[in-house]
Amino acid sequence: MSTAAILGGGVIGGGWAARFLLMGWDVVVYDPAPDAKTKLDEVMKNAKRSLPALSEHALPTMGTLAWADDIASAVKEASWIQESVPERLNIKHDVLKVVQENCSKDAIIGSSTSGFKPSELQEHSVNPSQIIVAHPFNPVYLLPLAELVGNAETIKKAQIVLQGLGMHGLHVRKEIDAHIADRFLEAVWREGLWLIKDGIATTQEIDDAIRFGFGLRWAQMGLFETYRIAGGEAGMAHFIEQFGPALEWPWTKLMDVPELTDDLINKIATQSDEQSGMHSIRELERIRDDNLVGMMRALKARGWGAGKLLNEHDQKTQPEFKAQNDELINSINRAIPIDWTDYNGHMNESRYGQVFSDAADSVLRMIGVDQAYIDSGSSYFTVDIHIKFMEETLAHENIKVYSQVLLGEGKKLRLFHQMMSEDNRMLATGEQMLLHVDLNTRKSSVPEGEVLKQLNNLAQLHADLPHPGA
Amino acid sequence: MSTAAILGGGVIGGGWAARFLLMGWDVVVYDPAPDAKTKLDEVMKNAKRSLPALSEHALPTMGTLAWADDIASAVKEASWIQESVPERLNIKHDVLKVVQENCSKDAIIGSSTSGFKPSELQEHSVNPSQIIVAHPFNPVYLLPLAELVGNAETIKKAQIVLQGLGMHGLHVRKEIDAHIADRFLEAVWREGLWLIKDGIATTQEIDDAIRFGFGLRWAQMGLFETYRIAGGEAGMAHFIEQFGPALEWPWTKLMDVPELTDDLINKIATQSDEQSGMHSIRELERIRDDNLVGMMRALKARGWGAGKLLNEHDQKTQPEFKAQNDELINSINRAIPIDWTDYNGHMNESRYGQVFSDAADSVLRMIGVDQAYIDSGSSYFTVDIHIKFMEETLAHENIKVYSQVLLGEGKKLRLFHQMMSEDNRMLATGEQMLLHVDLNTRKSSVPEGEVLKQLNNLAQLHADLPHPGA
Repeated sequence: MSTAAILGGGVIGGGWAARFLLMGWDVVVYDPAPDAKTKLDEVMKNAKRSLPALSEHALPTMGTLAWADDIASAVKEASWIQESVPERLNIKHDVLKVVQENCSKDAIIGSSTSGFKPSELQEHSVNPSQIIVAHPFNPVYLLPLAELVGNAETIKKAQIVLQGLGMHGLHVRKEIDAHIADRFLEAVWREGLWLIKDGIATTQEIDDAIRFGFGLRWAQMGLFETYRIAGGEAGMAHFIEQFGPALEWPWTKLMDVPELTDDLINKIATQSDEQSGMHSIRELERIRDDNLVGMMRALKARGWGAGKLLNEHDQKTQPEFKAQNDELINSINRAIPIDWTDYNGHMNESRYGQVFSDAADSVLRMIGVDQAYIDSGSSYFTVDIHIKFMEETLAHENIKVYSQVLLGEGKKLRLFHQMMSEDNRMLATGEQMLLHVDLNTRKSSVPEGEVLKQLNNLAQLHADLPHPGA
Repeated sequence: MSTAAILGGGVIGGGWAARFLLMGWDVVVYDPAPDAKTKLDEVMKNAKRSLPALSEHALPTMGTLAWADDIASAVKEASWIQESVPERLNIKHDVLKVVQENCSKDAIIGSSTSGFKPSELQEHSVNPSQIIVAHPFNPVYLLPLAELVGNAETIKKAQIVLQGLGMHGLHVRKEIDAHIADRFLEAVWREGLWLIKDGIATTQEIDDAIRFGFGLRWAQMGLFETYRIAGGEAGMAHFIEQFGPALEWPWTKLMDVPELTDDLINKIATQSDEQSGMHSIRELERIRDDNLVGMMRALKARGWGAGKLLNEHDQKTQPEFKAQNDELINSINRAIPIDWTDYNGHMNESRYGQVFSDAADSVLRMIGVDQAYIDSGSSYFTVDIHIKFMEETLAHENIKVYSQVLLGEGKKLRLFHQMMSEDNRMLATGEQMLLHVDLNTRKSSVPEGEVLKQLNNLAQLHADLPHPGA
């Protein structure tokens, strides 16, 4: 079990803590603020309802959370130390000094700073290469990006740790103020302030201009891949030559910084209240998280962008099912994602079918029907399923499925699935008939030797189990 | 039937044409380019495989496409004229002059210009209020945003037309170079060029910094709502005061424009090849469109952002089902969206269940079980379904479902659904048992008087139909 030390437990530090904990790390938090525990508890609640939904199987057993009275004891056992204290260099220097006096020489010290360069953080350090920038994005427990700046060797190690947390550590190869993403955010922020100050648009209008247009594009391809498409077959160079002159036009006021007068601040706050004031911050957080989970799951189905990262993580952490004995197969362990619920507030009936379809996939992988087998031209198709719905299941609940082979003979496979709640209430059953299919002719066929052998073997093992009945 | 005239049929004009056509408008295109028909054909192919998937029911019958030999004949019958000719003001003036000499006084003339203001377009015009900016975003057939600038009365009319096309016409109330969204895009583009020129990041690294972080956020909330959350309960004004000082830091090079030397252009083009060169532009377009459809459908399930627009459009265009006679109910007409397919390349088995669940919803709406009824505390839950899978169904195919009431008595409702291909092959059947439920007690109950009456009436009408058998 690895241990992470979280120094500063606000929205960012708390997000780190939640991600480490839910991914199975032990976490020690140091935060002297009187409301630190309440704040972390709020972030944990959000994280627990959303992060598990990004995976198609259960997350590892959650780590334990401990609170430290001082930095020294917080970092002692830690292999990752994440600093998220206020953005003032002298505070960061003081914290990092105590950290390095007490932590392991092999520990990675990541700073959540959005503005400081590693060379600035490392001033006066005895072991500077240990300190890197690891700049995450809110909500840290959902968004995969962390910008990593600093020593290349340390970053290589950090990338492996982050991958284990389901994150993408982007190596920013040259240190620069604000790294990469925040440079864009600042540019957009400045422009937004001007548009509001000049009365061109309200916060709502600006947000609509983003989320109904380029925001959707950027969630899956970035700036350059999007423009590559716009350039068409003529290519990227052609696109730039066409678009280039516009850069000289007086379209932007970004060369100038609007003064943040009370008037301007008040204007923005009022517009924001009109736009979003009907929702509490807590509600907005949950709306945002549900949206992000839904979209990231959509990208997952496409195997693209953030969804590709999620698939890779799933694949690495996928549990092995072994048919070693005559027990029912625990084919599914997972949380119910928000996008599986309907207007009745419970899991839509069709998703029971999806769970049983996934359960069948688990059984199929056990007998050697994996991606390679499918790529070689064979698969199983379901020809018939009978589902009985016994109890409702709500979003964020954990479920498990136990599967039984009722028949495994030639091209036929008959499965019986029992879907259970975490406390072992029976939620639904599914009896499913599958046929082995030649994907070229799309006709049924007998599986290849090794698959057939494993199928017969599994059917044999299950033959003595009690029949589940009708 | 309304007619739209499309002047200039490139990616943008073609995207407009595709959206109008698929939403049931007749379209006349004028584009003198020799490859105009090939280009439009390519956009149409993309649009046909993606736009229908955004709706939960079939789109209207497609309009007819005609090609005009000149602008005069193109615009004669049109109630909407969309100009997407090259971004040179003298060309636009020439085109608009001929348009206004030949079109109806009531027609709306929209310009796709990303840079010119309406006052510039309207110079020398005899009927200036007719000309507005209607600036869309690529791909026009999927993204809902169009920025509208110009006469407020014309824009009100335009917004209604765009709503009918499933779009959101954002009224930009003060004219300004580049409207709203492109100001942000230009700011980000400039910053991106600097990062590449200075060797800080590659196109791939920049795109990852966007799509793994803030890009995901902006697809559902924009800049200000996102920061409102970051500000927390302390409020937006507090957030700005905190974030404000960073605006004065030297984080951005945006005050300066990088020179587009051959070296820089070549650097970007090479990096872009390394990043995306393994895909053709056509492939990238389809990857992008599938991603967008998947994410927009995810937002639809959440009723938020672009998904909220889609739901509103669905609701407005939802077909009425009437139980006037003793025929089977055509409960579903729709295309199979890409996110319903699995690794076998066909519709996942669970989505058959979803189609039948949706078919049941259609039948339920017929007997008065609508959102208001559900809000009043009652609904139907499925307790049992038996699905037989007969043929595969692939993404983008059109399907229809015919539903029959086998039993409608007290709290019980038994339905039989037949899912058919466009050419009437039987794809699957589903026999489904539903119970009426009191949503407060979550226990079965008898429906209220009017629903029960309509249920019995429908059951009566279907009693004489042949029983579909086992």
